[in-house]
Order: sequence, then structure tokens, then C-alpha cells
Amino acid sequence: MNDANRFLDRAVELARQNVEAGGRPFGALVVRDGEVIATAVNEIHLSHDLTDHAKLLAIRAAARDHGPQVLKGSAVYASGHPCPMCLAAMRLAGVNAVTYAYSNQDAAPFGLSTADLYNELKLPFAEQSMEIRHRPLDGSPRPDLYEQWAKAQSDPE
Amino acid sequence: MNDANRFLDRAVELARQNVEAGGRPFGALVVRDGEVIATAVNEIHLSHDLTDHAKLLAIRAAARDHGPQVLKGSAVYASGHPCPMCLAAMRLAGVNAVTYAYSNQDAAPFGLSTADLYNELKLPFAEQSMEIRHRPLDGSPRPDLYEQWAKAQSDPE
Repeated sequence: MNDANRFLDRAVELARQNVEAGGRPFGALVVRDGEVIATAVNEIHLSHDLTDHAKLLAIRAAARDHGPQVLKGSAVYASGHPCPMCLAAMRLAGVNAVTYAYSNQDAAPFGLSTADLYNELKLPFAEQSMEIRHRPLDGSPRPDLYEQWAKAQSDPE
Repeated sequence: MNDANRFLDRAVELARQNVEAGGRPFGALVVRDGEVIATAVNEIHLSHDLTDHAKLLAIRAAARDHGPQVLKGSAVYASGHPCPMCLAAMRLAGVNAVTYAYSNQDAAPFGLSTADLYNELKLPFAEQSMEIRHRPLDGSPRPDLYEQWAKAQSDPE
């Protein structure tokens, strides 16, 4: 069995164990230089936090345990299709590649697909079902928030 | 000053204080029934976890402190344009509306815009710069992961 299959099998096994523990069927691991540096399962059944997805928790665990630099160029292996939150999180963290075993098509009959959310998030903000409003501050003077940050970056005390 | 402006002003003030503390210029709060139930700032300067965005941390704090149900129908007020991770997280958590003061256009000159990431995440997986691979398990028998979960849901011990 090659490495990719071995890592995927382990992610699926994590997901299976999570089902036995009363959780959702999702597991993920972060691999760097051929080594597994973090694993996680979906923890919504424990925390009731609907953002506690396996992939997000796995990259957060990797950053916490090894420092964030470890994620740059890492690979994620996941039992299931990444949701838009986890995909964006992996991008922000510098993950290089993600491989998954079960697709959204596999998940759809069980209400576990995120295909509809993907499609909606591609729409312009004004056409999405969540109200997304840009409301520039109308106070005067307007705080130059980003300029202040740039100045703090270039001129640290 | 109406409520929306008051909440936005507070989010921007959180962001400003975070800059003073050495962090990035982002703050957010979660409002439910006219009350602020959680606040957060971007904590990347503390944790070095690149997913520690103000909006994600604010909804996680609200779920942790008040239970996840509180987020359904809640509103988020944020200093800055939501990134794709935070937007998807708010959707997953059931947040109803998000209002922000500073746009990606405001952020672009300072390298803080997520417009490019939004554009790329709209592409088909095969066209994105991160490698995203679907690799169905080829083992036999293939574990019926999602069926097992559905059975566990309908027939809890």
C-alpha cells in the first residue's frame, strides 16, 4: 500500500472510530515530510460547536503543537470532501495539498454534502441567503485602522 | 447612534486595541436579540495559528459560552470584510447576517485583502493552485462509512 493510500485509510479509520464514539463520520490528518504530525476527528458531538470540523481541528492542532510554519507545504488527508470553511482554512495556513476519500456525491444521500453551500458561496454577496452588508463608518474622523497597523508593523517599539 | 453603528464602532475599537497590542487590525462581535454575547480579536500574533481570525473566534466563543443554538439567527459585526473561511464558518453556525466596516478594497493596499482567495475558491478544484484530489478507497470491501453513521443516528444505543 502506498503512502497516500495508507494516510487515507488512517483518516477513514479515524472517522469510523468517531462514529463509534457517537460523532460524525469525519477524520483528518496532517502530513509533513512523510510523517503524520497531527490528527483530528469532527468534534461537534462533544463541543456542539458547528465549526469543529476534523480538517480545521487537524491544522489547528498541527500549528499549536509544531508551530505554524510546519503547515507550509504540508498535506492533509481526509476521509471526506473538504467543506468551504476547511478549504479556505487550509489555504490560509499554507497547506499544499488535500486528498479525500469520500466525495460530496457519496455524502449527499445522508445530508452530509456541502455542495449547496459551495454553490451559494460562489454568488455575489447580495445574492446569498445570509445578509452580508458593507457599512462604512460614517463617523468623522474615520479611524485609519489599516494605516495604523501598517505603521505598527514597520515601526515596532 | 443606531445599534448597527454602535456595534460596528465597537468592532473597530476592538481592532484598534488589537493593533496597539501588537496584533492584526481585526475585531468582531456576535449579537443576539440586541445584546453582545461574544467578542474577539484576531489572535494570530499570540497563537501564530493562521486560522485565529476574529470572526471565527467570536462565533466559537459564543458557541462555547452560550451553546451553539444561540448562533442561529445571530448577527456578526466585524471591523473587516469576512474572509472565505469566516464566511463559511458563519454559515455553518447559522449566523443570520454579517455587517463589516472596512472592505477588501480598503484592505488591499496593505496586503490584507482576501479578494484573490475568494476568486480562486470559486474555480473548479482542478484549476485551483492547491492540489485537491478525490481518491476513492480501492480496498475491498469498502467501509460504508456514511451508512454506519446514519444507522448510529437512527438507532442510538
